[in-house]
Amino acid sequence: MDIATLRAKHPDHWMRAAAIRTLTLDAVAAANSGHSGMPMGMADVATVLFEKHLKFDPKAPRWPDRDRFILSAGHGSMLIYSLMYLTGYADVTLDQIKNFRQWGAITAGHPEYGHVAGVETTTGPLGQGIANSVGFAMAEEHLRAVWGAKVQDHYTYVIAGDGCLMEGVSQEALGIAGKQQLSRLIVLWDNNGITIDGKVSLSDVTDQKARFAASGWDVFECDGHDPEDIDRAITAAKKSPRPAMIACATHIAFGHAAQDTSKGHGALTDKAQMAAAKEAYGWTAGPFEVPADVKKAWEGFGARGAAARAEWNTRVAALSAAKQAELTRVFATEAPAKLAAAIRGVKKAAAEAPAKLATRSASEKVLAAVNPVMPETFAGSADLTGSNNTKTADLGTFGVEDRKGRYMYWGIREHGMAAAMNGLALHGGVRPYSGTFMAFTDYARPSMRLSALMGLPVVYVMTHDSIGLGEDGPTHQPVEHLAISRATPNTLVLRPADLVEVAEAWEVALSQTKTPSVMALSRQNLMPVRTKHTNQNMVAKGAYVLVDATAKRQVILIATGSEIEIAMKARDLLEAEAIGTRVVSMPSMELFAQQDEAYRKKVLPAGPVRVGIEAGVRQGWDRWLLGERGKDGKAAFIGMSSFGASAPYDRLYKEFGITAEATVAAVKAML
Amino acid sequence: MDIATLRAKHPDHWMRAAAIRTLTLDAVAAANSGHSGMPMGMADVATVLFEKHLKFDPKAPRWPDRDRFILSAGHGSMLIYSLMYLTGYADVTLDQIKNFRQWGAITAGHPEYGHVAGVETTTGPLGQGIANSVGFAMAEEHLRAVWGAKVQDHYTYVIAGDGCLMEGVSQEALGIAGKQQLSRLIVLWDNNGITIDGKVSLSDVTDQKARFAASGWDVFECDGHDPEDIDRAITAAKKSPRPAMIACATHIAFGHAAQDTSKGHGALTDKAQMAAAKEAYGWTAGPFEVPADVKKAWEGFGARGAAARAEWNTRVAALSAAKQAELTRVFATEAPAKLAAAIRGVKKAAAEAPAKLATRSASEKVLAAVNPVMPETFAGSADLTGSNNTKTADLGTFGVEDRKGRYMYWGIREHGMAAAMNGLALHGGVRPYSGTFMAFTDYARPSMRLSALMGLPVVYVMTHDSIGLGEDGPTHQPVEHLAISRATPNTLVLRPADLVEVAEAWEVALSQTKTPSVMALSRQNLMPVRTKHTNQNMVAKGAYVLVDATAKRQVILIATGSEIEIAMKARDLLEAEAIGTRVVSMPSMELFAQQDEAYRKKVLPAGPVRVGIEAGVRQGWDRWLLGERGKDGKAAFIGMSSFGASAPYDRLYKEFGITAEATVAAVKAML
Repeated sequence: MDIATLRAKHPDHWMRAAAIRTLTLDAVAAANSGHSGMPMGMADVATVLFEKHLKFDPKAPRWPDRDRFILSAGHGSMLIYSLMYLTGYADVTLDQIKNFRQWGAITAGHPEYGHVAGVETTTGPLGQGIANSVGFAMAEEHLRAVWGAKVQDHYTYVIAGDGCLMEGVSQEALGIAGKQQLSRLIVLWDNNGITIDGKVSLSDVTDQKARFAASGWDVFECDGHDPEDIDRAITAAKKSPRPAMIACATHIAFGHAAQDTSKGHGALTDKAQMAAAKEAYGWTAGPFEVPADVKKAWEGFGARGAAARAEWNTRVAALSAAKQAELTRVFATEAPAKLAAAIRGVKKAAAEAPAKLATRSASEKVLAAVNPVMPETFAGSADLTGSNNTKTADLGTFGVEDRKGRYMYWGIREHGMAAAMNGLALHGGVRPYSGTFMAFTDYARPSMRLSALMGLPVVYVMTHDSIGLGEDGPTHQPVEHLAISRATPNTLVLRPADLVEVAEAWEVALSQTKTPSVMALSRQNLMPVRTKHTNQNMVAKGAYVLVDATAKRQVILIATGSEIEIAMKARDLLEAEAIGTRVVSMPSMELFAQQDEAYRKKVLPAGPVRVGIEAGVRQGWDRWLLGERGKDGKAAFIGMSSFGASAPYDRLYKEFGITAEATVAAVKAML
Repeated sequence: MDIATLRAKHPDHWMRAAAIRTLTLDAVAAANSGHSGMPMGMADVATVLFEKHLKFDPKAPRWPDRDRFILSAGHGSMLIYSLMYLTGYADVTLDQIKNFRQWGAITAGHPEYGHVAGVETTTGPLGQGIANSVGFAMAEEHLRAVWGAKVQDHYTYVIAGDGCLMEGVSQEALGIAGKQQLSRLIVLWDNNGITIDGKVSLSDVTDQKARFAASGWDVFECDGHDPEDIDRAITAAKKSPRPAMIACATHIAFGHAAQDTSKGHGALTDKAQMAAAKEAYGWTAGPFEVPADVKKAWEGFGARGAAARAEWNTRVAALSAAKQAELTRVFATEAPAKLAAAIRGVKKAAAEAPAKLATRSASEKVLAAVNPVMPETFAGSADLTGSNNTKTADLGTFGVEDRKGRYMYWGIREHGMAAAMNGLALHGGVRPYSGTFMAFTDYARPSMRLSALMGLPVVYVMTHDSIGLGEDGPTHQPVEHLAISRATPNTLVLRPADLVEVAEAWEVALSQTKTPSVMALSRQNLMPVRTKHTNQNMVAKGAYVLVDATAKRQVILIATGSEIEIAMKARDLLEAEAIGTRVVSMPSMELFAQQDEAYRKKVLPAGPVRVGIEAGVRQGWDRWLLGERGKDGKAAFIGMSSFGASAPYDRLYKEFGITAEATVAAVKAML
């Protein structure tokens, strides 16, 4: 249908959708930057969704049982800002729309979680939103089983573009959702046939409908500009017993001279063309103006959810006080009071009966104590359950047969797993952790970065954290990955050395509310080093004196995780030669950097030579070896400067010179 | 069919395949480590492929027109080592098989490119091999068009498992291959229904055949243990005008007690079970023994390719001497003699008429001079052609209609692009470079790491390399990505400051033979700083004195790329106050680290206070700020310690304090 026909057939709908289109044109023109075409193409679909289907209440944007709306095609951010302004979200004022993409405005270039109340997740890096949505839908299924439909009973809607569907992570998301039969997940595909470089056909011939169907989805179609057809398709998709994809046939930059072209993807700021588009829309209001009747209609859609929310409030108020408190707690990401005792219990037992243990196995022991007292944990592994040690006996298996299950077999999908964990955390009510090999940080990186950017307290359980992995060789041996995670803002890297430190590290990770953690754990067995019990959480300090010099202090050895036992052995050798040596355990550089200067100087006083020992690259270490010295001092690093190799791990440590003997030699060369 | 039936029906084939199975069992048992099940499951398929189809010659493993065989399921490395030993590759001796996964052996845990002559690519991280294979097949199509079928005319075969197909990158590979109708690409899917965690159905319900078909592939099936059926399917797949996938129904760990279980995936070392399996195979030879008639048959398959290679040699010998030399050159990854002159020309013109220019635009200017004299370049972008400035006028577009085209529209597939670039480089005869936004390093990371591990001189053109990207905001603004690439062994990070440095950086990158480069380029326009021509390549030094102090030297400002102009402005301000200030341009930390100590000390003498300026995180900088000082000195860093924000870029630089004024203040606080 052409615009004239659509206008004539659905005049009210048309003007409501035109409000999105014109706000988009005006905001992008004011910023002289942004993406006009996507909101202009999907305005009709979004209008129907918000008018007739989405359960939302602008007065309570974070109400736990709202439907979730995820704009996976995040570059079309003016779509979501327009919707929020029009329906009456308090934070998205007209002033914010006018300041689109400007410093200090919450209306960022791409929708940022935490800026605008109605934005459920940060999108922009393509494919992330659709993969997040799988986590949202899983959380809903799980919480509906745990709390009942009175408490959780909603849909997750996603708008995704061709870019989202071309990104590989989308296939991982499709696979997870299809297997899990996430029937409350509905993806609206903006099928406009255009990418930045030109037509989609320039780079892809994929039959997306067939592809979704192949992964266990139900597939629907609609004319993405015909409100009746859109409504029919969404209504049908909601009834589907499987995740649903609706292929919405749309025109990018609908009604603009750049319609159906790649130029339409970007900033459409030509004044004459803007005027012509508005004329085609029958839009006579000025820039940023929305006629009162149109605004009123939109606010009416915004008011539609108030009743549902009130009913939900009533139902929740009928729960026991304890249940209400628990519901509040889990949605607030607060650790339970019992966590501290559980951690103390593990620490005490470990100190009393120290045993040689891989830290990944230590982690399993800690989780066995934590999971029973923390029912919101939701665990998993990317097909390495037995290696990552993430599953404990009480979790059950999340699946169609058991929605209360708390363990997820993600399949060989590290990226999809990480993105879905973000979705689980964003949804609220669950606390996700999952594992893979640390080298596969690379696969999960785009989503790990978003955990940090969004401030989600997800825990990445990264086992086999060095050449200690052994025979599988350099493809599977992380070397640069500790540095990579440490380089990332708002990311906590925890590399504990034994069961006691692992317990403390989990306590730290599970007490975060705004920061993801990377738990780096060894494959190989390690000697226990924390053999004297203390209630204090030493890992929370980031670094601390594990054992001080006996002879006059000339040396400080700083190590993490599996290299602590090398430092301890080197200390024995040095002390035997009357070279006083302190060993500092540094499980977290980020936490140590947060301590005050006095504490830092107490742990790392100026004077002694320093040696850092870690089976990874030096990058990130120089601050502790060379910086904050107060006076000139010498330092060395015992670690990796190349990729690893395939051989038994003890041989590798020797061949790469990460040994107590090499440490002693480095010290002596400096003294 | 059961084993007894198969043995009876195809006794010769059976024993040949059994040789793979028993070598696998013996090698894994000796290493007490490895993956037995995959080679045991795919032994029949591999036997038929090597016996009847693969064009290969163990006497000339790197012969340019060989068929390529890629074991995407790299954990099954004993399959490829067995095949090489059996067919007579000189390097894979029985001793190597016996030393599987041991220090110093070339028979690494996963197949490593460069260790074993017949290994085409390093695999193990799942999905990489199948995505590499797309690059191999593209290179073959391209070179066949450029050089004629007399020179290039071969197939690319891949063995991929469920893990490869679950990884998202596989979908990107499918999309590229389907669009490009890579009819010489044949994927043999090891359809055994098992992953490490259990049955595939535990995590996936995808109909893989339908999925491949949806992306434009032809799909075939066979009984993966019936040699006749395998042969029929491969024969049919070779005739397909599209890329072909053969679903090979197999049993993991065929014939072993662990058959059809996830236990079968790993190391099967139980002696009694090994003996029972061998008995089922009818195998009476001792450990590592292959009966003479079986070995002889295998060597016969190995000898099959000699004639084809001799004919190819004859055809190539008939080419003109110039063409032969050129063919040798491009397959040796040697830069052409004309490159230096082209670079000098750009530098001279730039120095003579300096202009404000974004380094991404500068890069386009350099490529416009380079591509005509370097016909082996093969360019592209992940749907950001106009932003990455990777396309020059002479390249044409690679596609079904023009196989000579040298520009590839990869689509929104950074990971698939990077993996395919590895494949292009591994195939030889082409020199790939392609672009995306630097923040999307994250998406390409798994393949970028493999470029480094394999030593492939791929060039990653990473534009929009800081908060200078502006309004698109923190999702698109790299902050930690320079540090990430610098943390990666064998990776050259080049961050040039103007057109002259960009030209030098390209010369450095295109002269590499064993190291990938990350070219970090600005979105925003920059002032030219190298306004005096010199033939010397200063970027090749890694860092150099751009301008020295006029007043007594008290300060050294070290900067890279877009921050050089901030350093220059700060120097003006400081010199105006008689504070002598040197500016050091440091386009590559890796190259500077390779210089001798005398040069490094000349550029960064002890004494003056140092300030590093880079719109990224500090990690990696401390070596240059704090290390190698010779005596105590003060240092500061002007850069980022958080994620960016959405606003015009000049505002962001101010708000994040990356300015000349902040630099001056930091200097004064130290003096």
